Amino acid sequence: MRDFLPADKASREHALGVIRQSFSAHGFDEIETPVMEDAARLHSGLGGDNEKLAFAVMKRGLKATDVAAAVAADDLLSLADLGLRFDLTVPLARFYATHRAELPTVFRAIQIAPVWRAERPQKGRYRQFVQCDIDIIGEAGPLAEIELITATAATLDALGLTGCSIRINDRRILTTMLGHWGIAPELSERALITIDKLDKIGVDGVVAELAGLGVDTAGIADTVNTLGGSGWNVGAEAPDWLDQTAFADLLALRAAMPGVDLVFDPTLVRGMGYYTGTIFEISHPTLGYSLGGGGRYDGMIGRFLGTDVPACGFSIGFERIVDLLGADDASTARAVVLVHNPDANPAQLVNLKTALVADGLRVRLERRTKNLKALLDRAAEAGFGRFAFVGNDTTTAAELEFKDLGT
Amino acid sequence: MRDFLPADKASREHALGVIRQSFSAHGFDEIETPVMEDAARLHSGLGGDNEKLAFAVMKRGLKATDVAAAVAADDLLSLADLGLRFDLTVPLARFYATHRAELPTVFRAIQIAPVWRAERPQKGRYRQFVQCDIDIIGEAGPLAEIELITATAATLDALGLTGCSIRINDRRILTTMLGHWGIAPELSERALITIDKLDKIGVDGVVAELAGLGVDTAGIADTVNTLGGSGWNVGAEAPDWLDQTAFADLLALRAAMPGVDLVFDPTLVRGMGYYTGTIFEISHPTLGYSLGGGGRYDGMIGRFLGTDVPACGFSIGFERIVDLLGADDASTARAVVLVHNPDANPAQLVNLKTALVADGLRVRLERRTKNLKALLDRAAEAGFGRFAFVGNDTTTAAELEFKDLGT
Repeated sequence: MRDFLPADKASREHALGVIRQSFSAHGFDEIETPVMEDAARLHSGLGGDNEKLAFAVMKRGLKATDVAAAVAADDLLSLADLGLRFDLTVPLARFYATHRAELPTVFRAIQIAPVWRAERPQKGRYRQFVQCDIDIIGEAGPLAEIELITATAATLDALGLTGCSIRINDRRILTTMLGHWGIAPELSERALITIDKLDKIGVDGVVAELAGLGVDTAGIADTVNTLGGSGWNVGAEAPDWLDQTAFADLLALRAAMPGVDLVFDPTLVRGMGYYTGTIFEISHPTLGYSLGGGGRYDGMIGRFLGTDVPACGFSIGFERIVDLLGADDASTARAVVLVHNPDANPAQLVNLKTALVADGLRVRLERRTKNLKALLDRAAEAGFGRFAFVGNDTTTAAELEFKDLGT
Repeated sequence: MRDFLPADKASREHALGVIRQSFSAHGFDEIETPVMEDAARLHSGLGGDNEKLAFAVMKRGLKATDVAAAVAADDLLSLADLGLRFDLTVPLARFYATHRAELPTVFRAIQIAPVWRAERPQKGRYRQFVQCDIDIIGEAGPLAEIELITATAATLDALGLTGCSIRINDRRILTTMLGHWGIAPELSERALITIDKLDKIGVDGVVAELAGLGVDTAGIADTVNTLGGSGWNVGAEAPDWLDQTAFADLLALRAAMPGVDLVFDPTLVRGMGYYTGTIFEISHPTLGYSLGGGGRYDGMIGRFLGTDVPACGFSIGFERIVDLLGADDASTARAVVLVHNPDANPAQLVNLKTALVADGLRVRLERRTKNLKALLDRAAEAGFGRFAFVGNDTTTAAELEFKDLGT
């Protein structure tokens, strides 16, 4: 868990503002749920391995006898009635089940909020981090995928992240492929985990791992070799392993979004088992990791609601994205420092400051110190672009002479 | 704890954006700390009664033997190593102690974040709520109070909350007054709690409660009678009980902020014991409760740092304020609904939508239903201002005919 100092916090809030505005413009509605959910709901099986990483909140007013009873019953989990959410999908399903009558038939949700996982501390993994999710609940057709992907691509643009592409696949294509290879359904999840590693372990590695599962790999190497780079062209060859219905649906998505760099990748898997149709991920040519992803999960909401509702979602990896963004130059130009003498009249200072704020500037007062250079360097580092001295006889903002702060 | 549906969440985010922008323009820097702090720090005595309300987070990987040992040692608190913060002041003190070397000499902090208290559920009390605090650390002079109060008054204006005044007092004035009344120091806190209730229990009630504490109340009733309404005029009378130095300081603050409706109220107390100088609260003529408050707390940061640092803060009551705000008309005018036929071409829809978003509009697609009126009413309720039908032959945004949605 991290503290955010002013410069980092400003970058984060700037990016969050851009994301919020962009998703909202695309017709999504932001909601918020409490950070704590009932422990039973967090451990209902929808969260996969993340469930084990939930922080548990102790019941209030526990007495020694209650605790001793939990020990005797070998049920330490009963000491906690609440937990911190480990994702935003379980809370969304609970929210939708609770408030369905108050929501539009097709509900386009934004959730921008922290989640918590009790991971072992390691580089790039945080125990508290922000997720930015959009989800469309109640739309079974391709309009859901189209709205999610166009809104996400527009948001990456608005953040200034150019060159991103969206890799896309469909769970049905993976299922057909495994069937064609003669892989038994009970081995599918493990085979998918292997295929997901193609870019790391190569074709030989994938074939070796599949063989290790007891799969007859004759002919698989040749197919796997064609999977990686062919993209949409693979459709022209109409290989046996390709589910033609699912592929035609993907081609239609591509045709509907000519402005988005959509790349077909039949080796894209995505970890969570709840996906039922399309799956997608954000790639950037200079990065070895994805900047976000999502897919269709038509069965999941039904588990809370008791009746099936189609759903599809896209999550952008906020922590990764915010690290890639540069400084916000527009806000630096508008940020000024007023350097004043230690004996300056507070009323005069606040009067000048108020006038500049009314003009749309961000204004920091700094008492003059012996080491003026250090003071100005610190202000430049903190994102201020200009400074002026306040003389004891300066009474109006028009008298201030602003100079640029070197950066 | 509450879920926020789209309309409420939009109001909250709009207000948070205004507050963030206004505080930032006034030279404050936003920071963020993790929602969990070490349990030991949360229970260090700085949080007053709120410490008892902290949600406790269980240690990970607890074994039955650990728990049994905690029961045997009668130390159930040892089962938790973390807790959810109950305010933003304890985390600020910890943050400042950790990062002091990286912060400006005078540090003006913004913290806008949720806090948690395990209160019994009751009307208007929430277990998760947002606090908006600004604090100035390292400024001993009146410039701290002036910057805090002018920034807060400007923020209330920016939110559209007109007619607010700031009641102000000084702990030194209260101390002198109690001394003048012959109230022993060990009774001061209880006497202050009584005085704080003047507007609820009246002069007779205050005198009766003070008498109940064993105070000789001869003459006190007359003084209390003059406390309530006289405001700044009481200074002209220079009553014995008034600390003239502290009062002169308050007059100087008033002179420095002619644009702020600053009201002297010698009965203003504020609950927290850590205040050492000025104290202030936001009043609104139509409300029986305060919309925020703060004061100087010069001793507190030192308890974490080991060396004294002056500090002063102002917190606005976000949950109360957001309930008072009206709809954001500007965003309604920019929000439009496109009503389309069930068999509309998704590519055509997303093309129209993208063009309108690029023009700065917020766009929601709605599939036409039999009950069109219900659909449009729901869109109006959700904050959309206009709608247009998409014909199957509509290809450009210019062909759309927008009509107002009645509200």
